[in-house]
Amino acid sequence: MNNTIPYKIYLEEHEMPRQWYNVRADMKKKPEPLLNPATLQPMTEDELSQVFCRELARQELDETTAYIDIPEEIRDFYRMYRPAPLVRAYCLEKKLQTPAHIYYKFEGNNTSGSHKLNSAIAQAYYAKKQGLKGVTTETGAGQWGTALSMACSYFDLDCQVYMVKCSYEQKPFRREVMRTYGAQVTPSPSMKTAIGRKINEEFPGTTGSLGCAISEAVEAAAAQDGYRYVLGSVLAQVLLHQSVIGLETKVALDKYGVKADIIIGCAGGGSNLGGLISPFVGEMLRGEADYQIIAVEPASCPSLTRGKYAYDFCDTGKVCPLQKMYTLGSSFIPSASHAGGLRYHGMSAIVSELYDQGLLEARSVEQTAIFEAAQNFARIEGILPAPESSHAIRVAIDEALRCKETGEEKNIVFGLTGTGYFDMYAYQSYNDGQMGDYIPTDAEIAESLAKLPKL
Amino acid sequence: MNNTIPYKIYLEEHEMPRQWYNVRADMKKKPEPLLNPATLQPMTEDELSQVFCRELARQELDETTAYIDIPEEIRDFYRMYRPAPLVRAYCLEKKLQTPAHIYYKFEGNNTSGSHKLNSAIAQAYYAKKQGLKGVTTETGAGQWGTALSMACSYFDLDCQVYMVKCSYEQKPFRREVMRTYGAQVTPSPSMKTAIGRKINEEFPGTTGSLGCAISEAVEAAAAQDGYRYVLGSVLAQVLLHQSVIGLETKVALDKYGVKADIIIGCAGGGSNLGGLISPFVGEMLRGEADYQIIAVEPASCPSLTRGKYAYDFCDTGKVCPLQKMYTLGSSFIPSASHAGGLRYHGMSAIVSELYDQGLLEARSVEQTAIFEAAQNFARIEGILPAPESSHAIRVAIDEALRCKETGEEKNIVFGLTGTGYFDMYAYQSYNDGQMGDYIPTDAEIAESLAKLPKL
Repeated sequence: MNNTIPYKIYLEEHEMPRQWYNVRADMKKKPEPLLNPATLQPMTEDELSQVFCRELARQELDETTAYIDIPEEIRDFYRMYRPAPLVRAYCLEKKLQTPAHIYYKFEGNNTSGSHKLNSAIAQAYYAKKQGLKGVTTETGAGQWGTALSMACSYFDLDCQVYMVKCSYEQKPFRREVMRTYGAQVTPSPSMKTAIGRKINEEFPGTTGSLGCAISEAVEAAAAQDGYRYVLGSVLAQVLLHQSVIGLETKVALDKYGVKADIIIGCAGGGSNLGGLISPFVGEMLRGEADYQIIAVEPASCPSLTRGKYAYDFCDTGKVCPLQKMYTLGSSFIPSASHAGGLRYHGMSAIVSELYDQGLLEARSVEQTAIFEAAQNFARIEGILPAPESSHAIRVAIDEALRCKETGEEKNIVFGLTGTGYFDMYAYQSYNDGQMGDYIPTDAEIAESLAKLPKL
Repeated sequence: MNNTIPYKIYLEEHEMPRQWYNVRADMKKKPEPLLNPATLQPMTEDELSQVFCRELARQELDETTAYIDIPEEIRDFYRMYRPAPLVRAYCLEKKLQTPAHIYYKFEGNNTSGSHKLNSAIAQAYYAKKQGLKGVTTETGAGQWGTALSMACSYFDLDCQVYMVKCSYEQKPFRREVMRTYGAQVTPSPSMKTAIGRKINEEFPGTTGSLGCAISEAVEAAAAQDGYRYVLGSVLAQVLLHQSVIGLETKVALDKYGVKADIIIGCAGGGSNLGGLISPFVGEMLRGEADYQIIAVEPASCPSLTRGKYAYDFCDTGKVCPLQKMYTLGSSFIPSASHAGGLRYHGMSAIVSELYDQGLLEARSVEQTAIFEAAQNFARIEGILPAPESSHAIRVAIDEALRCKETGEEKNIVFGLTGTGYFDMYAYQSYNDGQMGDYIPTDAEIAESLAKLPKL
């Protein structure tokens, strides 16, 4: 055991990042632009500002500014729950008997239970600064909705959350956390919006989907004066805010002279992965360093490993801009899995482009293998991980075991995005031996890819 | 805002305590001894060792050793989730517009969600070291059971938890966390023990109580070779282990030259309060410093403020030793409140004796006032507190508002024992305006005090 590295590397508050890092600035080939679904032309700042607040629209389109100041008000909020620790997984290493050194950046030490708060507070801040009354959003697993509720409560903004109906019913406690923070939570599809009523009519008794909840939230924002829509993943602005994860990780590693060899993150919409890897990918793009970067996605929703790099809709209602991304098609309905945060048909345009350029690799893993890793990790490292985060744990363990075979003393760094306290139905299913694996067939994926928009 | 004090004061790992502090060593008048219920003579180490493992029996009876080394194996485990931060509540101060400086020691950053893990890991360690196969215990709200499950999993010990039946049914997710850590969880009263069968027969359909679950766990330990009983509060050994809370708090305050004026803790069995205040009370006992110490208990179970200082049984089945403590009588059934961890008829003998000596004061607060404070705290400081912890928050806010009136710049330190993620039924009840207050009448308390054992 290397005693010079503590179990948990906490940065001092003055070591926390003062600027976010915009990886697009270092990409020679940038992600393709968002397109207006009506005109098929690149979205302008004015057009985007009808959906998002002005400063966020600006951030969304800014491909050249590498570093963007984090406003002092946001830094004050960050200081309440950040810096997040970079943990040396000594106990896990010992249990695996691996020569590898395993580190994880733990983002679960806040009431939202995940990294989502990093962008929620930024989006709420800019909305408040613009003088808005409130924001609307969707939530699936509930982490994003909780994070946004906390952020809006802090800045005294109204918060309206459209929560996928099956989650609303299965996770009443998530709903109550949001209510405790003053948010108004509506099960989606609802009867409050035209798209919700349409979907309820077409599919009576439907339990909803993320794509549908997005459409409802966008419609609800447009229908109210002083409201804008906010989104917790996929967008470039979100990856920008989430770069705080990677920046802190890098400072913490540098502080102890540790060079990462492998960097692993779970990937749903790409917010955590993109944020974690940004500064490292920046070094790769500038030719300063090299890393093996692994995106881990569920075998039930394999957008990177089995999807297509194409323009697609971000939502079911097709009201959002078109984005070029790795996608399974916006009509793809991921099977019911317990990693709700990863059940998205598409992927961040930035992550997609980096993947297309070969800067990262992707793996898909099955649910039961994920929960085996989750349970082991909980028992060995004492943290009960979220199902989403456990995708990264699975591959980190696999890589550490590979090092055991080869004898390599690699430094493995992974993102532990959050805790699983509100996912105990899933753990119960695993504890009871009732959990299954669901992998879409080639025909299913081909069918939904055939419906991609023709540009 | 004093910028020299960070939002969160984290100690370096080398600053973490290497020894627990045994406050009894500095007490001129010690707590009265535990009595054997059969002989009414002080319990000997041999007698106690039939219930507890040997080293813990020794710690229970040791009134003279001030500092006891924390074994390296326990310190390794502590390093996975400690040091716990001492947080400067800048946002709360600002919201209250108080000149007071508010600090809280946050013990919720671990999967058990509370400070209970500090003693659980110690008790599991000594059990393992003695070569035991496993341990039995009871749990009410579930924090202790979760903590013990984690500790036993770490040391590969069998863990059998008797969970008060109403909690078992109302908190299925707590149960699942324990199962994830490999514990066997039984609703109490059960049909597995003689006392459980007797209670089920006398009170058909009963949903159980902590006192009854204790009796079952003690019986279950005695009935199995290689098992001992462990308890998460009340005992002197538990306060010894929990002194790590106060020791870290003191080091963190000293590091920044802050002298506490008021120290506040919630009090059920006394484990958190006793641990937090130990080193400070030690200074008072040695005449080195003075502090205002406030124990906060629920108005529904007011052992310090309305109980009697007398010998009483620790459990309903009357199989445990007699202890002199502030008590409402072992037949007192606290009304259903949402602070399950504070629903205990008695109090730590150490805390009781310190209270009797006038070293601390006590206040009782009503449930709705608690949840008002909890919701405000969640919104302002971003942490969703456990109902138990919120007792301390309530009084900290009250004291900060008093400082606002008087203009005093006092340093208020309170213990934030844990998070409320598994208490969302309670928050829901508050959010829905359905929560009530329950205060026992004088007649009810007199009736149960009349049944105190006559020695």
